[in-house]
Amino acid sequence: VIREQTLALLQQVAAGTLDPRQALDALSLAPSTQSPFATVDHHRALRQGFPEVIYGSGKTVDQVLAIAAELEPHGDGVLITRCESTLRAALGDKYPRAEINDLGRTTYIPPGDPGRVPKGKGTVLIVTAGTSDLPVAEEAAATAKALGDTVTRATDVGVAGIHRVLAHGRDLMNATVVIVVAGMDGALPSVVGGLVGTPVIAVPTSVGYGASFQGLAPLLAMLNSCAAGVTVVNIDNGFGAAMAASRITHGAAIF
Amino acid sequence: VIREQTLALLQQVAAGTLDPRQALDALSLAPSTQSPFATVDHHRALRQGFPEVIYGSGKTVDQVLAIAAELEPHGDGVLITRCESTLRAALGDKYPRAEINDLGRTTYIPPGDPGRVPKGKGTVLIVTAGTSDLPVAEEAAATAKALGDTVTRATDVGVAGIHRVLAHGRDLMNATVVIVVAGMDGALPSVVGGLVGTPVIAVPTSVGYGASFQGLAPLLAMLNSCAAGVTVVNIDNGFGAAMAASRITHGAAIF
Amino acid sequence: VIREQTLALLQQVAAGTLDPRQALDALSLAPSTQSPFATVDHHRALRQGFPEVIYGSGKTVDQVLAIAAELEPHGDGVLITRCESTLRAALGDKYPRAEINDLGRTTYIPPGDPGRVPKGKGTVLIVTAGTSDLPVAEEAAATAKALGDTVTRATDVGVAGIHRVLAHGRDLMNATVVIVVAGMDGALPSVVGGLVGTPVIAVPTSVGYGASFQGLAPLLAMLNSCAAGVTVVNIDNGFGAAMAASRITHGAAIF
Amino acid sequence: VIREQTLALLQQVAAGTLDPRQALDALSLAPSTQSPFATVDHHRALRQGFPEVIYGSGKTVDQVLAIAAELEPHGDGVLITRCESTLRAALGDKYPRAEINDLGRTTYIPPGDPGRVPKGKGTVLIVTAGTSDLPVAEEAAATAKALGDTVTRATDVGVAGIHRVLAHGRDLMNATVVIVVAGMDGALPSVVGGLVGTPVIAVPTSVGYGASFQGLAPLLAMLNSCAAGVTVVNIDNGFGAAMAASRITHGAAIF
Amino acid sequence: VIREQTLALLQQVAAGTLDPRQALDALSLAPSTQSPFATVDHHRALRQGFPEVIYGSGKTVDQVLAIAAELEPHGDGVLITRCESTLRAALGDKYPRAEINDLGRTTYIPPGDPGRVPKGKGTVLIVTAGTSDLPVAEEAAATAKALGDTVTRATDVGVAGIHRVLAHGRDLMNATVVIVVAGMDGALPSVVGGLVGTPVIAVPTSVGYGASFQGLAPLLAMLNSCAAGVTVVNIDNGFGAAMAASRITHGAAIF
Amino acid sequence: VIREQTLALLQQVAAGTLDPRQALDALSLAPSTQSPFATVDHHRALRQGFPEVIYGSGKTVDQVLAIAAELEPHGDGVLITRCESTLRAALGDKYPRAEINDLGRTTYIPPGDPGRVPKGKGTVLIVTAGTSDLPVAEEAAATAKALGDTVTRATDVGVAGIHRVLAHGRDLMNATVVIVVAGMDGALPSVVGGLVGTPVIAVPTSVGYGASFQGLAPLLAMLNSCAAGVTVVNIDNGFGAAMAASRITHGAAIF
Amino acid sequence: VIREQTLALLQQVAAGTLDPRQALDALSLAPSTQSPFATVDHHRALRQGFPEVIYGSGKTVDQVLAIAAELEPHGDGVLITRCESTLRAALGDKYPRAEINDLGRTTYIPPGDPGRVPKGKGTVLIVTAGTSDLPVAEEAAATAKALGDTVTRATDVGVAGIHRVLAHGRDLMNATVVIVVAGMDGALPSVVGGLVGTPVIAVPTSVGYGASFQGLAPLLAMLNSCAAGVTVVNIDNGFGAAMAASRITHGAAIF
Amino acid sequence: VIREQTLALLQQVAAGTLDPRQALDALSLAPSTQSPFATVDHHRALRQGFPEVIYGSGKTVDQVLAIAAELEPHGDGVLITRCESTLRAALGDKYPRAEINDLGRTTYIPPGDPGRVPKGKGTVLIVTAGTSDLPVAEEAAATAKALGDTVTRATDVGVAGIHRVLAHGRDLMNATVVIVVAGMDGALPSVVGGLVGTPVIAVPTSVGYGASFQGLAPLLAMLNSCAAGVTVVNIDNGFGAAMAASRITHGAAIF
Repeated sequence: VIREQTLALLQQVAAGTLDPRQALDALSLAPSTQSPFATVDHHRALRQGFPEVIYGSGKTVDQVLAIAAELEPHGDGVLITRCESTLRAALGDKYPRAEINDLGRTTYIPPGDPGRVPKGKGTVLIVTAGTSDLPVAEEAAATAKALGDTVTRATDVGVAGIHRVLAHGRDLMNATVVIVVAGMDGALPSVVGGLVGTPVIAVPTSVGYGASFQGLAPLLAMLNSCAAGVTVVNIDNGFGAAMAASRITHGAAIF
Repeated sequence: VIREQTLALLQQVAAGTLDPRQALDALSLAPSTQSPFATVDHHRALRQGFPEVIYGSGKTVDQVLAIAAELEPHGDGVLITRCESTLRAALGDKYPRAEINDLGRTTYIPPGDPGRVPKGKGTVLIVTAGTSDLPVAEEAAATAKALGDTVTRATDVGVAGIHRVLAHGRDLMNATVVIVVAGMDGALPSVVGGLVGTPVIAVPTSVGYGASFQGLAPLLAMLNSCAAGVTVVNIDNGFGAAMAASRITHGAAIF
Repeated sequence: VIREQTLALLQQVAAGTLDPRQALDALSLAPSTQSPFATVDHHRALRQGFPEVIYGSGKTVDQVLAIAAELEPHGDGVLITRCESTLRAALGDKYPRAEINDLGRTTYIPPGDPGRVPKGKGTVLIVTAGTSDLPVAEEAAATAKALGDTVTRATDVGVAGIHRVLAHGRDLMNATVVIVVAGMDGALPSVVGGLVGTPVIAVPTSVGYGASFQGLAPLLAMLNSCAAGVTVVNIDNGFGAAMAASRITHGAAIF
Repeated sequence: VIREQTLALLQQVAAGTLDPRQALDALSLAPSTQSPFATVDHHRALRQGFPEVIYGSGKTVDQVLAIAAELEPHGDGVLITRCESTLRAALGDKYPRAEINDLGRTTYIPPGDPGRVPKGKGTVLIVTAGTSDLPVAEEAAATAKALGDTVTRATDVGVAGIHRVLAHGRDLMNATVVIVVAGMDGALPSVVGGLVGTPVIAVPTSVGYGASFQGLAPLLAMLNSCAAGVTVVNIDNGFGAAMAASRITHGAAIF
Repeated sequence: VIREQTLALLQQVAAGTLDPRQALDALSLAPSTQSPFATVDHHRALRQGFPEVIYGSGKTVDQVLAIAAELEPHGDGVLITRCESTLRAALGDKYPRAEINDLGRTTYIPPGDPGRVPKGKGTVLIVTAGTSDLPVAEEAAATAKALGDTVTRATDVGVAGIHRVLAHGRDLMNATVVIVVAGMDGALPSVVGGLVGTPVIAVPTSVGYGASFQGLAPLLAMLNSCAAGVTVVNIDNGFGAAMAASRITHGAAIF
Repeated sequence: VIREQTLALLQQVAAGTLDPRQALDALSLAPSTQSPFATVDHHRALRQGFPEVIYGSGKTVDQVLAIAAELEPHGDGVLITRCESTLRAALGDKYPRAEINDLGRTTYIPPGDPGRVPKGKGTVLIVTAGTSDLPVAEEAAATAKALGDTVTRATDVGVAGIHRVLAHGRDLMNATVVIVVAGMDGALPSVVGGLVGTPVIAVPTSVGYGASFQGLAPLLAMLNSCAAGVTVVNIDNGFGAAMAASRITHGAAIF
Repeated sequence: VIREQTLALLQQVAAGTLDPRQALDALSLAPSTQSPFATVDHHRALRQGFPEVIYGSGKTVDQVLAIAAELEPHGDGVLITRCESTLRAALGDKYPRAEINDLGRTTYIPPGDPGRVPKGKGTVLIVTAGTSDLPVAEEAAATAKALGDTVTRATDVGVAGIHRVLAHGRDLMNATVVIVVAGMDGALPSVVGGLVGTPVIAVPTSVGYGASFQGLAPLLAMLNSCAAGVTVVNIDNGFGAAMAASRITHGAAIF
Repeated sequence: VIREQTLALLQQVAAGTLDPRQALDALSLAPSTQSPFATVDHHRALRQGFPEVIYGSGKTVDQVLAIAAELEPHGDGVLITRCESTLRAALGDKYPRAEINDLGRTTYIPPGDPGRVPKGKGTVLIVTAGTSDLPVAEEAAATAKALGDTVTRATDVGVAGIHRVLAHGRDLMNATVVIVVAGMDGALPSVVGGLVGTPVIAVPTSVGYGASFQGLAPLLAMLNSCAAGVTVVNIDNGFGAAMAASRITHGAAIF
């Protein structure tokens, strides 16, 4: 709408009904929404069907239902993360087409119009070191699916049993992006990053105790990975890792 | 100039020599410099005579001289901080009117046009806990003076000799803003903040040893000051404290 | 009363009923309340109508009611911060004129005498990055109002959608002081500090997870702000930020 | 008893009923309890009537009652710290002579024999910055009393209202040892340490929020106190501070 | 060669000159180089012309020259990072075709065979907040070029002057991957990440002082970026950021 | 089975029914389970009767029962750590031969076949500084027993009563490995490490308060032990310490 | 002099030459030097002969000589700490009676008048863990001697050779105060604190490497000492420890 | 000699020339050197030929030569660690039989009597992740050799090239103890610990930059190793790792 308002303003100038200096003042005071980015943002959303996202933690069931009711008609789908069980149940009741991931604590309401469901752009392999890392891994998986990526999984692949990593050779080679979720020593991204040339996104988890310091240990390990070109997101941030993967799989699609 | 370019563009539209849709595209692609802030920035500089600032650390004498030679003709003065002795000498040789603060490691080249020398807006009292805090305090003092503030000082005012603080009663009452520079336990801003109702800006210094951890101890103490409304800047950041003081003394002058 | 006692003592000396040396001993042993600050403190309270403040956290409802009952007759108003819902209800029942801020968890009992309600001195704009920062922002808002400042707000202004910041141009230009409340990356004060020349007080919040480390991440970011002259208060300290703002708006009023 | 056993052994050697080499082997294998310290330990307990101490935290009521029942007959008194309300009630029921400190969460069962009640050796002044520091201060007070010291108090003495510190001049001068309990900026011990020449023991508390980091801020401030000769104990360790004070007041008594 | 050795072994089995059980033992004891990854590694290098990399820091000029002399004949080019001036001069003397980046402290010896020079796969935009971040940015630039990417730059784009960011709209839109290099508050990746949908890799720098804690402040800020999907590499790790970018630009090329 | 599959494949080659190149491809794509380690792993388990381990924390009773039901038939025994009371009861009901350690929160289900019960290889002495360290010590004890080691104990051996350490001279001399469990100052491993020449494994505990920082204080102290050759495991990691001890007692047995 | 000025003022009041109200104003505006503490300070210095202290670090030889020349005539002696070799030589040349401690990097110029040399009040035993702790220990020793205490030493007394601690039984029993200087694991104060009932002051040193983190490890260990009543000063702060000891030995002497 | 003195004393008692009570007093006051440990210490040294160790860092060449001259005649050999090049040269000149390790910065002077050269007890494999870890690894190697262990090496074995780890299968299986030296992500001990059942001692190094924080990153990773039973020593502490290995190889030999 901003483009249209600006156009209307310029047409008034062209029509002689608005003085150029007055138009200048109007433009100066308006929010700078005439920047190329606002436009881009708009187009990208249309083209890619990115869902709206609600961070469920710290919100009541009623609050989330209200926000979802407002966003759902936009038609791009709605993803709710950090979504506890009663909230998941309530959303499932209201939106029977919702896809619920219990382990990942997410609920995804796909677009009502099947034509706007995001199309698959790439394959995101999610590798996890231990079973306790699964909630973070599944948050990433549910997010990646909602963003239109194909998701594959390699679970319980710890470096202390290196043959378990090596056994996933084909999966590693077939992925467009690899997300590696690990707590404790955070060693897995280094091994995976040494095996594949594709992008590797490391997610430290707060799983562990003592000198893990709530995920600080694997975070630092991953930032110091001896495999060059591994990147890192925040502790337990499965959502962010999938968003980063999506920037790669969708971004590539533009060019 | 951006305003002028935009005005020219709008005048072309008014004159019918430019199609409104083409004008829209031109606006969209231009940097959003038609925002009110660009204008404000420009005006503020004219009105206040804020000097340009060069951070001298890590630059060679020749590099700083070259940058200064480029900025000096703007006419608002040039302040060089973290400016070591050979650099101070070189600047003093080239700009005889320069004001050099050896302790604060600053050089200030005032505007050549006396009419553009910034006028005093307020009084900034700089209180220091110990003699080793003086370099940071003097960086603040030189900056505040270059910004047009009047500077008073209360030095060697440690809380372990509380009568030394109390002896500065009149100075504390006469200041528009008080900058308190302290290392070690960082206790001084709490005492000063309890004595005066004017703004108190605390600057932790890296002076001290052991569990000072390069200024972490006074930084944390100041953030936890038991005197309400004390604010804090970065460790050793005398320049930033004076800039914050100047936001208060000049800002107040506008309204 | 101390001035009066000292005066009585001096009058005894003048009357010859007290030996000067005995008077000296009496003065030496008395608390040093004859300092100028004691006087100043008293005057400032009268002139500014600063309310008394109760920090509600960790106190029972009965304890807070008792303290409020003692302070309320002083006539300068009472502000209770960190005041949970049952406490807010109890205070609202007892003082129907109380102003309750649910989000900010504050209750303000204004002076009974309308003549002593603090007069507005300046405009404090409170900018928040995300909705989870609102409790801290509202604590600041309620405090600033109780201190007699006019409060404006710009909410949900994250730097990841920079046009949302730019859209608040007029509000930013009209404020005497800007308080910026942000968690996560703590980036907002830098953007705001680059847009305005007025004082900017940054409040880091403990909102976020993982490597936020309960607000350490935005705290450090704000202390290292690339906008010169931004000052910082403690994590989640909305009250302190408003107190700092009030030091600026009221302090300016004296001179 | 070890001395007696060793003596018996030596008498056997003297009597010729034990070979010197066999005696040597016996001595080598015995715990080295023939050291002067074992003796000293024993004597000191007799001379000073130091109570036995039970750290109540993490123990059930029954566990503490059982330990107390075992220690109480030793006749030197029993002090229970970190002793929650139901435990205090149970101890009070069983030992009517027990002295209960609700705020400090301690229970002290004095010796049954009045002649073994520890005699006062010195005066310990406990200074607190804020009301939230009182639990730690009272743990120190109850401990110091159980150790035979006279306890005086100066409460709510924050450095942000420096006249409140100065008002306690006489108390400060009369104390043998001063324990200063403070959270937040930990500034109070510096002010007190600058006023008196007697030993000052600083106790940081975990009171506060944000960048206090559970007492790290005042801990670091106190370790960096600008008043020379201030010593520090662990965060919230009122018991340890009183024990340190007692080492001074009793130790002095020996020589 | 491992494939060839294994093939020879299998051919012996086929020829009946080696017992299957003996072959099994031989396979078991050999390094597991018959894994798919060894092969992949080999193929990828051929296909992409990835240079060999030498980390120059802590090595003598003679050591680096010796390693380079050994690697150069492999024909994929050699990149030397953290390469100080005398080393750059020595390499430039020996390999006149070497490309030297003084600011980034790198030397790149391209393949002697022009046919093996890596082909451009994507455009990497490197955005820097301040001039002091340039060495890290140029390390990234030199690495990305050696890896066959096209490099564009946007320098001195601080968030405290937000119009400077907005002025680079076209560059941001044209990039396949954006690397954002920033010290101090680390705010720039959040702004950039909000403007573009392509992958954003953030590099914190150790530029700054005091509470920057050698880059900890921007590192934490970037991990907590309010722009979803921003990933982070180690402090000052321009090389790693370019490697990560290359994983995206080359990886995408496979599928 | 991998060896058998590989053997079958090689036998096909020998029989001429499989082309050597096809066999090579098959080997390349298979997980590299033909490595010597897979074999070793298998052999070691048979030889040592190492139990399977379930980390109980964060799992429901039903989940643990299901995993145990799957592992128990393997015949090497099952050890469940971090196993709360209801879980211990449920396991005890189902497996009457289970050995439950309430203090150490472990349940051990020994092999049903007495011949596979692990044989004692060495003596592990577990030394604890205080009674609050006992849960960690008992986790170590239960683990060491399940691994076939003989366990001895020396409890409540604090360095503040050094004769209590010295009194355990014989126990210290008789141990193959000494595990020292301590919180607070973490001083005990240094004293023990100075008394014995056998391996000393230090376990810091999160017992304590204030500046213990959840076990950071003893962890750092132990890493800096003045007794050379003391090694350290993670905070509260009794299980890991016993595993390390078992590497020593069993490892030694092989050669 | 303040007392005298105040007395003069009161005498003017008594003489009728000064109005009581004018006197009140004069008192209000004067620094509050009429407090009991100023007097006490003065008296204490006379009584105890406390030397003046110059912290030599960061000062030129000429600066220290100038300060010393100003303080020396006060007659209480001058102590220079952190005094490097050329400074020590210069001071020794100028003041032949100066006592130089090379290891402790101190120079002490005793009072010229032998009657004002401080008299011994107590015995301070300084215990050191390793030879690298000696500079800190000797700073403490030189300070304690300058303050009039008798100093004894027990060097190289590490807890890894516990018999070396026990061998100093008599020295430990004879001391009024024990200062324990230790780096690495900081375990020594716990052992010493368990052996003696007299005050124990722990000084962590920055000796060590790796996870010592410049003395953080022993600092935390000492704060968590399992010997009750041990107090701690800043890392490497031998001067502060001796000052604390002197507060005990001199303070005790008053009562 | 202590045993002999005690025996002499007991023989006096047996001879009737010393009263048992006087003997008791003499024993009480003597250092408790009659403990079993003193004896054990002595025996162990004889039996094992452990060298004396000098930590060279911070000592002058003359100081080290003097200490070495004193220790060398003891006949057990002398090991000097952290021994810079001029010191190594000086020691090599004086003791031509000295074994110098330039990379590990050690000098070992073996016993002059070949019969006292320590005999090999076990094989210590030292695995290093990168070439920059070699100085720490070689310090461990030189120490292990001086302690009589056989040393094998596997260098440049990073987890980012996992086949390089797997290629050392035989070496790993042949070692009695494995020392793993790694900086950066500290991932290598987890991989190694998963491959072998023998003791694994992890040594973090300060190699790396940025968020390595001088070795904190690999230290935390190693403490959180997902391979159970890996133990850790201090950052860069190659000497300590070899000492720990020697406790295992020699300790095992006793039983």
